[in-house]
Amino acid sequence: MSIHRLERLAGEAEARLPVAVARYFRQGSGASVSTAEAVTAWERQRLLPHALVDVSQVETGTTLLGTPVRTPIAVAPSTFQRAADPQGERAMAAAVAELGSLLTVSSNAGTRFEAIAETGVAWWLQAYLPSDRHAALPLLERAVEAGARAIVLTADTPVVANKDDGDAETIWQIAEDDWLQVNFDANYGSRPEHAKARDLGPADIEWLRERTGLPVVVKGILRPDDAARCVAAGAAAIWVSNHGGRQLDGAAATADCLPDVVAAVGDQAEVYVDGGIRSGRHVLTALALGARGVFLGRPPLWALAAGGRDRVVTEMTVLNDELVEAMQLAGMSRPRADPSLVMTARR
Amino acid sequence: MSIHRLERLAGEAEARLPVAVARYFRQGSGASVSTAEAVTAWERQRLLPHALVDVSQVETGTTLLGTPVRTPIAVAPSTFQRAADPQGERAMAAAVAELGSLLTVSSNAGTRFEAIAETGVAWWLQAYLPSDRHAALPLLERAVEAGARAIVLTADTPVVANKDDGDAETIWQIAEDDWLQVNFDANYGSRPEHAKARDLGPADIEWLRERTGLPVVVKGILRPDDAARCVAAGAAAIWVSNHGGRQLDGAAATADCLPDVVAAVGDQAEVYVDGGIRSGRHVLTALALGARGVFLGRPPLWALAAGGRDRVVTEMTVLNDELVEAMQLAGMSRPRADPSLVMTARR
Amino acid sequence: MSIHRLERLAGEAEARLPVAVARYFRQGSGASVSTAEAVTAWERQRLLPHALVDVSQVETGTTLLGTPVRTPIAVAPSTFQRAADPQGERAMAAAVAELGSLLTVSSNAGTRFEAIAETGVAWWLQAYLPSDRHAALPLLERAVEAGARAIVLTADTPVVANKDDGDAETIWQIAEDDWLQVNFDANYGSRPEHAKARDLGPADIEWLRERTGLPVVVKGILRPDDAARCVAAGAAAIWVSNHGGRQLDGAAATADCLPDVVAAVGDQAEVYVDGGIRSGRHVLTALALGARGVFLGRPPLWALAAGGRDRVVTEMTVLNDELVEAMQLAGMSRPRADPSLVMTARR
Amino acid sequence: MSIHRLERLAGEAEARLPVAVARYFRQGSGASVSTAEAVTAWERQRLLPHALVDVSQVETGTTLLGTPVRTPIAVAPSTFQRAADPQGERAMAAAVAELGSLLTVSSNAGTRFEAIAETGVAWWLQAYLPSDRHAALPLLERAVEAGARAIVLTADTPVVANKDDGDAETIWQIAEDDWLQVNFDANYGSRPEHAKARDLGPADIEWLRERTGLPVVVKGILRPDDAARCVAAGAAAIWVSNHGGRQLDGAAATADCLPDVVAAVGDQAEVYVDGGIRSGRHVLTALALGARGVFLGRPPLWALAAGGRDRVVTEMTVLNDELVEAMQLAGMSRPRADPSLVMTARR
Ligand SMILES: Cc1cc2nc3c(=O)[nH]c(=O)nc-3n(C[C@H](O)[C@H](O)[C@H](O)COP(=O)(O)O)c2cc1C
Ligand SMILES: Cc1cc2nc3c(=O)[nH]c(=O)nc-3n(C[C@H](O)[C@H](O)[C@H](O)COP(=O)(O)O)c2cc1C
Ligand SMILES: Cc1cc2nc3c(=O)[nH]c(=O)nc-3n(C[C@H](O)[C@H](O)[C@H](O)COP(=O)(O)O)c2cc1C
Ligand SMILES: Cc1cc2nc3c(=O)[nH]c(=O)nc-3n(C[C@H](O)[C@H](O)[C@H](O)COP(=O)(O)O)c2cc1C
Repeated sequence: MSIHRLERLAGEAEARLPVAVARYFRQGSGASVSTAEAVTAWERQRLLPHALVDVSQVETGTTLLGTPVRTPIAVAPSTFQRAADPQGERAMAAAVAELGSLLTVSSNAGTRFEAIAETGVAWWLQAYLPSDRHAALPLLERAVEAGARAIVLTADTPVVANKDDGDAETIWQIAEDDWLQVNFDANYGSRPEHAKARDLGPADIEWLRERTGLPVVVKGILRPDDAARCVAAGAAAIWVSNHGGRQLDGAAATADCLPDVVAAVGDQAEVYVDGGIRSGRHVLTALALGARGVFLGRPPLWALAAGGRDRVVTEMTVLNDELVEAMQLAGMSRPRADPSLVMTARR
Repeated sequence: MSIHRLERLAGEAEARLPVAVARYFRQGSGASVSTAEAVTAWERQRLLPHALVDVSQVETGTTLLGTPVRTPIAVAPSTFQRAADPQGERAMAAAVAELGSLLTVSSNAGTRFEAIAETGVAWWLQAYLPSDRHAALPLLERAVEAGARAIVLTADTPVVANKDDGDAETIWQIAEDDWLQVNFDANYGSRPEHAKARDLGPADIEWLRERTGLPVVVKGILRPDDAARCVAAGAAAIWVSNHGGRQLDGAAATADCLPDVVAAVGDQAEVYVDGGIRSGRHVLTALALGARGVFLGRPPLWALAAGGRDRVVTEMTVLNDELVEAMQLAGMSRPRADPSLVMTARR
Repeated sequence: MSIHRLERLAGEAEARLPVAVARYFRQGSGASVSTAEAVTAWERQRLLPHALVDVSQVETGTTLLGTPVRTPIAVAPSTFQRAADPQGERAMAAAVAELGSLLTVSSNAGTRFEAIAETGVAWWLQAYLPSDRHAALPLLERAVEAGARAIVLTADTPVVANKDDGDAETIWQIAEDDWLQVNFDANYGSRPEHAKARDLGPADIEWLRERTGLPVVVKGILRPDDAARCVAAGAAAIWVSNHGGRQLDGAAATADCLPDVVAAVGDQAEVYVDGGIRSGRHVLTALALGARGVFLGRPPLWALAAGGRDRVVTEMTVLNDELVEAMQLAGMSRPRADPSLVMTARR
Repeated sequence: MSIHRLERLAGEAEARLPVAVARYFRQGSGASVSTAEAVTAWERQRLLPHALVDVSQVETGTTLLGTPVRTPIAVAPSTFQRAADPQGERAMAAAVAELGSLLTVSSNAGTRFEAIAETGVAWWLQAYLPSDRHAALPLLERAVEAGARAIVLTADTPVVANKDDGDAETIWQIAEDDWLQVNFDANYGSRPEHAKARDLGPADIEWLRERTGLPVVVKGILRPDDAARCVAAGAAAIWVSNHGGRQLDGAAATADCLPDVVAAVGDQAEVYVDGGIRSGRHVLTALALGARGVFLGRPPLWALAAGGRDRVVTEMTVLNDELVEAMQLAGMSRPRADPSLVMTARR
């Protein structure tokens, strides 16, 4: 249950990647305050394990919006997977399929949905909506056709936050054309109304649900009032996230926001969390605080870069093994909320 | 939104300045405890951005005591601007005019009010009152005549705090005569009754207002009870400041004092804040906590030293761009109080 | 009363030990978060000593489940004492006997109970229960016969937590056969039902009491609700422990858990604590917070490695001398609860 | 108002002193936790200065048990002043006389009371009481005769705490005979009943008052209940102290204890504080929290070692100048309690 293992993995990955790609994967926006705090916010939680509880049958399996998964540890959407590995999203999907977990595919993915779906993975589409909502329809339809099981609406990105690259070469300068947005129409991005919508509102949740017939997950929520608004507007799940610290720098850590969101949502919707989760103990903490599932962004990307599909399987398996051990030691037989397990560190 | 950018600017400026000037700009009084804490007090605030809010029209413009400004980021009074750049206050004023912001001119300025006014800048006069209040009248009249729109009474300086220079050369040893106090009568400073008043009281607010016909801002307030006293005595605005850590060392950080002052003042007067504000995120935080405008002391001075008028324009523009981005990401369309945005960091 | 003394002792011990043994003694599970925090959690407590109190007769003697001891500082169970010193548990027992303290013997000990008992030491047996409880009976009977005065049921180890050894040689690779488990039947460990029970429950407390006729201490409790459950199920004492940080990494520090457990137990059972206790001041703090006795794991092991039986006597004597001094200075004449003595550090 | 000035002074002093003496002056007991925290406990207080208050007449003079002093900064008892300077207590007394402050003379002083009194200084005798109280009478009578104005009973030293000197040479090995205890009868210390009393109680306060006819100050109190007991038993003043961290290591910082003691004592007695006070700002904080006077231990000792009587005058004068400046900047015209001035740092 050591955060050091994934830190070593990052190092291994970065040794193989062009500097511009390595920096892009790791960096946060602004001064990277929120990115840095994400991990420590989980680390500083202290646990009060239950003793003398029967843990002979510990089970990590659960369902995410009805999809059965063997582990509550799923994969968050990230772009540029083809910069990590030539097989990109396909390799990631194959790994996640083998793990019996769930994959969120970025709308900017560099692999066609059909190729992803062919691996047999259970997957959701992450979407940014453009100014002109209708411009998104072709992408959404392709996803539905290829078997996406939910739409994840990213709500924290009306504009893309500035990242501090100094004078260094950036990933945008070395990216190949087909690393991004291969699921859009050819001319997508050429017109102003294709720019990210800055007027997203709760109504977009219902719109997405109607157009796709799929449940809608809202990703990028930190406030209980926003969570409640989304649920009232028809969201099937709330994904607590600060985008891995890549949007508003200084945004609160998700570990600190999760409890209030869970309280606001109750059992009207599922709640997930991402950001800085790096060990089985972190996952246990998130479950105890009321998350039904957790999502990882950078770790699977690093694993992909360090050793492709197989490495993703290995690393995520170790993580789930850590979770099993943590559950056994904490007295939790299956994923469930138990706030009494967490005593915020007094130091 | 990175504090590192301004830190780099300071370095650039200091490489061009005599050591005595560089130290004078940067140092606090005593052990510089309050100067050092000023920035971290903003940094440690954590934000809870609103999602799914329409930010297609983000506007930073506001008014400060009725003067329309394009940005809530204004310039605090500082002396020795001619030690930063030969054009001194004139260059600063020209930059602020171009930015559509507001300038506070130190009563000790090394440039005549007329020359400052010629740039077309909107400006306020900062004043220290002498023992014999009447000795201040010529200066005040000149300011009124040259178009000052308010008087900023600095209330935290009954005496000038000691700064620790060790045995090093100080700015006072290398300062040229006309770097300071060119708006006073020639013999000003020669008589004991010209020394800073140690018996300032609320009555001086009304006195200033009557003599100048201008609204009075009280600068250097940290306590809610003092703020209330000033407002009762006729202050048009309260400026929360610990003088950049240059007066009482160990004085509380303005980021920590602002909320209580805002609560005490209500809508009876405007509230501003300065001290350690170094990024768009800091400005956003100050606005959310109830400041109508923020003032910067060292950053524009450093910009002036690093590249004159143009550099001031560039740096302040970047800062306002950062503010726009932060507002978009936080869901704030125009400057307004929203304490729910700020979750004081629990670490 | 310095934590540095024991740190020096650890260094001395480690210089004499094979690296694999030294690491085994010191390490925690996972990232060793709980192991590291154990000591600092005592260090950060601040004390409010009583002045003008008669301390001419300071007495450290007390009883632990009726056994009179000259000091409330007793020895926790640890394996591999024969890796520290050829005389292993026998030397440890002889030292503890001379000290007039109490020894907890690990069920995995490498010395036969009879040899331990021969030293005249007052001792308790620590037991892990296997899947098939009856497989434990021979061991328990041997302990009863050899004079064990209580059974300490370790409740925090349904599985043994992973420790991060990297690629280094481990103690398991160099251990000799008779360093471990010499009090079990020869074939013990060969069958699946000998594995540690993962379904321990309160009923095992009563079972142990009935089978052995001895009082049962439950070791590895951090939660007040668990403590209450154990007491209701017949436990004679609750031992607050996170296994020296060797089980669930991130588990709360025992110094932070002790007060709530003490409050839950009241006077229905005795309460002990272990983990990171390294100075007389730490012992004083634990007593003040309501512990009747404290147990040390690593310090006596290190002493054993650094200088055998005699060194254990020396080091534990110094520790008790420190306790006496701390009691004199704090105004406590004999071990007793006094929460008013402890003001948790506000820093 | 910089703590760095006194730190530099300590360095200067230590360069002139034998290592054993330098270490003796600086060290705390145990791990020096309380000694180290003493200064930071004042440093971490944050102040909320009053603005627009008349500070044209700032006055530091006050009275301590009726004795008028020009400054509330007085000198705490310390032994071995002759190890700092050949003139020892005489030089210290002369300096304090010149400063118009007050001196506490250690009962273990190496200079006769008459010589101290000759300087004209206002002084109090600090006393430890022996097992056999009557053995103290000759010392007490000499002090009364020589003009001591109060007796300071040190209540935190039933035994002298162990200090960690490792194998280094100690001050006791190099001390000259007449550096210590020259005001005792020749044979004092030769009999067991001369050892420090371990059964001090409130009754000793009344006993001292009756025997000497002087007011009694109790030094070494950290708890409000103890303060109340002492006042009820006739104490004229309570001196909040943890003996500069030289007795119970881990004892709470006096800056943290002062407010509760002040609240418990009310106006029934005077309250003083010592420990880690190193700047005018610290003194201001102590006054604001309700101390009538503050005492310094190490700083005057270091000044004595660095430059004898004159240096003590210089350093203490600078400190009082710092206090004047801090009072002017904080809006306090004369020493008085004002808890609203102190906002404990939230960091
Ligand atoms: C390189 C990279 C690319 C990302 N791309 C997207 C994206 O296209 N859409 C999205 O909603 N989130 C994106 N994210 C955010 C992740 O989905 C997730 O919120 C975040 O990485 C979780 O934090 P972690 O990396 O600490 O696990 C990206 C993150 C990274 C690191
Ligand atoms: C070099 C320098 C000179 C200053 N001169 C004045 C002054 O003449 N009058 C005044 O009211 N404040 C003066 N100040 C304080 C500023 O107006 C302002 O309160 C402070 O600098 C804000 O903190 P910041 O520098 O961290 O932005 C000065 C500050 C500096 C750094
Ligand atoms: C090397 C080693 C072996 C241990 N073996 C056992 C054991 O066999 N049974 C048990 O209940 N606890 C065992 N423990 C835990 C101790 O009993 C005790 O809870 C812990 O060491 C206390 O913390 P401390 O080492 O900081 O004093 C062991 C600890 C160490 C360091
Ligand atoms: C070298 C030294 C000797 C001391 N001797 C005595 C003493 O004889 N009697 C006493 O009551 N306190 C004694 N003290 C404690 C001081 O009176 C005082 O409580 C303490 O030094 C205050 O802390 P400060 O040194 O941080 O100012 C001594 C302190 C030092 C540093």
